[in-house]
Amino acid sequence: KHIVVIAGDGIGQEVTTVGKQVLDRIAEKFGHEFTYDEALIGHAAIEATGNPLPEETITKSKQSDAILFGAVGHPKYDNDPSAKVRPEQGLLGIRKALGLYANLRPIKLFDELLQASSIKPEFLQGADILFFRELTGDVYFGEKGRKDEGDTAYDQMIYSRYEVERIAVKAFEAAMTRRKKLCSVDKANVLESSRLWREVVQEVAKRYPEVEVEHQFIDAAAMLLIKDPRRFDVVVTGNLFGDILTDEASQIAGSMGMLASASIGDTTGLYEPIHGSAHDITGKGVANPLASVLSAALMLDISFGMKAEAEAVVNAVDQVLKAGFRTRDIADATTPAHLILGTGEMG
Amino acid sequence: KHIVVIAGDGIGQEVTTVGKQVLDRIAEKFGHEFTYDEALIGHAAIEATGNPLPEETITKSKQSDAILFGAVGHPKYDNDPSAKVRPEQGLLGIRKALGLYANLRPIKLFDELLQASSIKPEFLQGADILFFRELTGDVYFGEKGRKDEGDTAYDQMIYSRYEVERIAVKAFEAAMTRRKKLCSVDKANVLESSRLWREVVQEVAKRYPEVEVEHQFIDAAAMLLIKDPRRFDVVVTGNLFGDILTDEASQIAGSMGMLASASIGDTTGLYEPIHGSAHDITGKGVANPLASVLSAALMLDISFGMKAEAEAVVNAVDQVLKAGFRTRDIADATTPAHLILGTGEMG
Ligand SMILES: CC(C)[C@H](C(=O)O)[C@@H](O)C(=O)O
Ligand SMILES: CC(C)[C@H](C(=O)O)[C@@H](O)C(=O)O
Repeated sequence: KHIVVIAGDGIGQEVTTVGKQVLDRIAEKFGHEFTYDEALIGHAAIEATGNPLPEETITKSKQSDAILFGAVGHPKYDNDPSAKVRPEQGLLGIRKALGLYANLRPIKLFDELLQASSIKPEFLQGADILFFRELTGDVYFGEKGRKDEGDTAYDQMIYSRYEVERIAVKAFEAAMTRRKKLCSVDKANVLESSRLWREVVQEVAKRYPEVEVEHQFIDAAAMLLIKDPRRFDVVVTGNLFGDILTDEASQIAGSMGMLASASIGDTTGLYEPIHGSAHDITGKGVANPLASVLSAALMLDISFGMKAEAEAVVNAVDQVLKAGFRTRDIADATTPAHLILGTGEMG
Repeated sequence: KHIVVIAGDGIGQEVTTVGKQVLDRIAEKFGHEFTYDEALIGHAAIEATGNPLPEETITKSKQSDAILFGAVGHPKYDNDPSAKVRPEQGLLGIRKALGLYANLRPIKLFDELLQASSIKPEFLQGADILFFRELTGDVYFGEKGRKDEGDTAYDQMIYSRYEVERIAVKAFEAAMTRRKKLCSVDKANVLESSRLWREVVQEVAKRYPEVEVEHQFIDAAAMLLIKDPRRFDVVVTGNLFGDILTDEASQIAGSMGMLASASIGDTTGLYEPIHGSAHDITGKGVANPLASVLSAALMLDISFGMKAEAEAVVNAVDQVLKAGFRTRDIADATTPAHLILGTGEMG
């Protein structure tokens, strides 16, 4: 299998280095051959080429069997809202160019981290949610611009039937292999695009009569996710609402540093931690690499169909946590100092 | 003072009845005269007149000194995304008609409810956030519609400089009277409207050099709100992001049933619980009326400048909780059955 590593910005480098090491170890143990290439994106690509998504990155990605992705972003652009070229254009661009319309974000708590969250353990125990976030539509990709001499700015939130249908189908299929519950999240009491979303999900639901379906408004969903995380099984939602809910849901898993995601479409899949570039800790060697490691596990499972290999990785993470090892973000007041590891050691 | 009560749908009736009783008691104790009128909105108004916001409701509202609002919404419309006339149009319409551009949502935990939340008490103790949600712009009011024979639906997310500026000024003014910290929430790494938002907040910030300002992306903010609620003082954000964050923040206060809001602009203010119509418990007499009671307190404070009166109401709520009384939503396993009260008794 040929894998392109796109490390990107901030802690992206540090964590994908570990993700790749884990893939190498799997190849060794299970007798596979993984070859690698690297490609630029984001701020790193802007610095090197002026373009947040060089053509070469797309070509390499298309020719690969899977992509191990780091993160994009840089505070420089965040503080300058008028910047025309931005790192995030690289990430949005590659999602679109590869047609990665379904972003799977599994939220599952490792038992050992039950205490790491600000949420009470009795509300978390057993929580297991699989988010399907639509990834190539919505207000992310609608027409955007300025008018009135720059004094008015707009972004179009937009969905078409086929876009909603294909992600809904993926979510229902997943629900069939799980607890057969699906929650669709929208804001249909206010938004026309959400009303289309709800219509289409209702239609697709008819094809899956065994799945128990509920529709929640995004505001209620953001509340229920904290109030009672265990009520959710599969959650399907649009690009923007999915961005918000999955970051929020990281608190269910104890830390954002533990959460992996898979972006899939009709071809090459992209595997990426849900945490961002985290410039505040970049270069310090303290970033939690487990989200990248678990992203590699998702790659093994989803893109390569290597179930046993994926399981071996997840078990390894479980065992390292059971042995008491922590990175800083998942340590608590009771963690002995010698069990708090840096990025490389955790790898 | 002349007050219009717009009870609306679901539990709106039950809770505003209690809110009004409290206002009456205040008038009696402090020697004020409050006169009342009623007006229709939402599903109730559709049933009676065909219109979710009858002209008469606007006229009465404009002539009043303040509005005590209940809730709007009905499951009938939620299940039928194609309905053309909807209860929520009443609420959005009155916000727009009265120019209620600033929605203040204070999130403060009553000590007695520290255990009622799914969040650990040590993360909540002392949390005190004041949200400023912009209320008459954004994707709520941008152009919306269908194209491609109904197969594509869109809503325009849109902000103009003056809209951002006036809400930012309100938020900074409030921060000056509090802990002098302000967090502005947007998605400036993706959205043009958010970039304008950030630009304008940065400009307004220059006029308030004493206020410590941070900018967070909505996804990070949704996470941080649960991870560390005490880091926030004043939060200012757009209509959609404010809708989501304040519902989520209800978990900080133990229950949505405790949260009041004030919608203000240049004229009459509207006071409203942040909970919705809650049809699942409508008519059962179990709804928590305290959000309506606390909304009445905000009215006394903000619209009538009656500080002592407002404080008396908040103290009364505090005392009733200290005495152990609870409605169902804020009771827990340790609450003795005889202390669990219905809506009227709690009033
Ligand atoms: C970096 C940003 C553009 C991105 C998004 O909003 O999609 C990130 O938050 C994510 O969730 O992958
Ligand atoms: C009922 C609905 C239109 C409303 C909104 O989204 O503004 C409600 O959720 C609120 O927060 O007041």
